[in-house]
Amino acid sequence: MSNLIDITDAPLLALWGETVRGRRIQGERLTLAVVELAPNAVVPEHRHEHEQLGMVIKGEVDFTLDGETRHLGPGGTWRCLSNRPHNVNAGPDGAVVLDIFNPTRDDWDDRAVVEDSVPRWPEAG
Amino acid sequence: MSNLIDITDAPLLALWGETVRGRRIQGERLTLAVVELAPNAVVPEHRHEHEQLGMVIKGEVDFTLDGETRHLGPGGTWRCLSNRPHNVNAGPDGAVVLDIFNPTRDDWDDRAVVEDSVPRWPEAG
Repeated sequence: MSNLIDITDAPLLALWGETVRGRRIQGERLTLAVVELAPNAVVPEHRHEHEQLGMVIKGEVDFTLDGETRHLGPGGTWRCLSNRPHNVNAGPDGAVVLDIFNPTRDDWDDRAVVEDSVPRWPEAG
Repeated sequence: MSNLIDITDAPLLALWGETVRGRRIQGERLTLAVVELAPNAVVPEHRHEHEQLGMVIKGEVDFTLDGETRHLGPGGTWRCLSNRPHNVNAGPDGAVVLDIFNPTRDDWDDRAVVEDSVPRWPEAG
């Protein structure tokens, strides 16, 4: 398999119900995920051993981390060290965000695949 | 310091001469970098112990990894395991790409900071 693929060729996984879905590239140490949040989607507070950094690509979110909340648009980032509590609320137009993890998110292996989805980003060119 | 910042508030570092520059967020295990490639910029073949995944955000590049070359636009990804040779050629309009690493790119600590730069992405809103 090629190590140079379009993210839209990766399967879309149901991450948090119907409203938070994502595609990922798996390395040996890194997961790179492009996550699509529906309008007003909510990711409830959670934490995990994985370190997680991320950035908004499109749209807007309110990101809460360790009790601090910021409204973030494209280029807004989060730096979530291991086991820190965080939650996210997407804006009224939804958002597409990048999330990266170490170690890899192997716990996503059993997530349901969403069929026939149109990527929210990038736009078909 | 906040763990929720805009990537454009991070200093712009000279990574490969004048034509390849980037901003980064540092975790304890992860580096997330937004790298700006000038039109026709060249990143010569190199390799490093760090695992590196990445994705085009804007523009186009030709990415060569382990002898395979692909022309990638927004959403095009690379999966570069430790010590694999890779090189990049930006398209005629340049590109903005995401690169992520484990372990962190502490070797960038001594890179020169570019002052008074206008980010190529995101566009000022």
